[in-house]
Amino acid sequence: MPAQVPKRLRGRPKQTDNDISIQQTIIYTASTLFKEFGYETVTLQQIGKKCGVSKPTIYYHFASKADLFQAAMTTMLQNVKKITSRMLEEAEHLQDGLIQLAEARLANPHGQIETMMREAEPLLEETHIHAIRDAEHQIHEVLAAHFKLAMEQQMFREEDPLFLAEAFSTLMLMGNREHDMKKFESHHVLAEKIVHVFLNGVTLS
Amino acid sequence: MPAQVPKRLRGRPKQTDNDISIQQTIIYTASTLFKEFGYETVTLQQIGKKCGVSKPTIYYHFASKADLFQAAMTTMLQNVKKITSRMLEEAEHLQDGLIQLAEARLANPHGQIETMMREAEPLLEETHIHAIRDAEHQIHEVLAAHFKLAMEQQMFREEDPLFLAEAFSTLMLMGNREHDMKKFESHHVLAEKIVHVFLNGVTLS
Repeated sequence: MPAQVPKRLRGRPKQTDNDISIQQTIIYTASTLFKEFGYETVTLQQIGKKCGVSKPTIYYHFASKADLFQAAMTTMLQNVKKITSRMLEEAEHLQDGLIQLAEARLANPHGQIETMMREAEPLLEETHIHAIRDAEHQIHEVLAAHFKLAMEQQMFREEDPLFLAEAFSTLMLMGNREHDMKKFESHHVLAEKIVHVFLNGVTLS
Repeated sequence: MPAQVPKRLRGRPKQTDNDISIQQTIIYTASTLFKEFGYETVTLQQIGKKCGVSKPTIYYHFASKADLFQAAMTTMLQNVKKITSRMLEEAEHLQDGLIQLAEARLANPHGQIETMMREAEPLLEETHIHAIRDAEHQIHEVLAAHFKLAMEQQMFREEDPLFLAEAFSTLMLMGNREHDMKKFESHHVLAEKIVHVFLNGVTLS
């Protein structure tokens, strides 16, 4: 199907590859704009203009700005989930996987997502909020599964693995503190320091 | 001096007790409104209406909305600093002080301040941002001083105490996750769990 889409399409035909790539372009552009200017300010027109598609084309793929926002947020979160899975599965030791993951997440601070959500929440419906929170929760589930395994292997003490996943994720917000981060040499050094606190605490053993 | 203030006051006379209490009322009201609606949305008129003072009275105390915002934010942060000092100084053991402090901060999530700052920053001048960030930094300095002492007493391992202060503060953001917090019995239980991770890590010793 060509990029030009009939203006008022009622029934949606089966999506072609081209449709999917347009959809991904819209999602990517929307993510970038929402991150920079926040949910409320960004218009569908602005998104369309930036990625070179018409507003009707956006409406062909997304019923509303809120739907597009949901798609943008869940896509970002699914990417974080994929990276989390891959890094923890490929690492020889959990510690190495956590450091790699921390380095990646500190470089791409998640706090922006939290800020966007707080701003957008009053303007979204319950279903949008739920879908986004669920995508976030799935990242924690991946972490929690690895932490649970570490407990079974007597590497971690017994604790609610989901609580530990949330504690680890929260520590990743240190990446938002750009004004403070100048002090630390690099994301890698900061990642090592944070994972060290998470694994061993600060008490002298 | 009565609450009614001349409309165009040029020189500011020495502040009376009444002036100070009006100023505090304005700051308190502004904090509440900024927290609820964000910096951009809230008007000085709205703040004045809510605390029963005229817009000129607000201008008698604060040169601009940005100045009032700065006063509101630094006042909140100075309170957190005071609580931090008091709790850590009065506690018999650092661990108890940290749990008490965590409990207080989880109940009053700091994340709102971060969200407000991100929204307001593009609309503020460098001096405002600097004053607010400095008030925040002072909380970390208090924490860092106690952590440094713990290192000198061989309780904590050697680490940049300011980094540890920021890690501890970041963990307090778990209080923002109201949607997840239902799982944990109370702020006290959550505070204990977080301080346990911070002090001892998750590795089985």
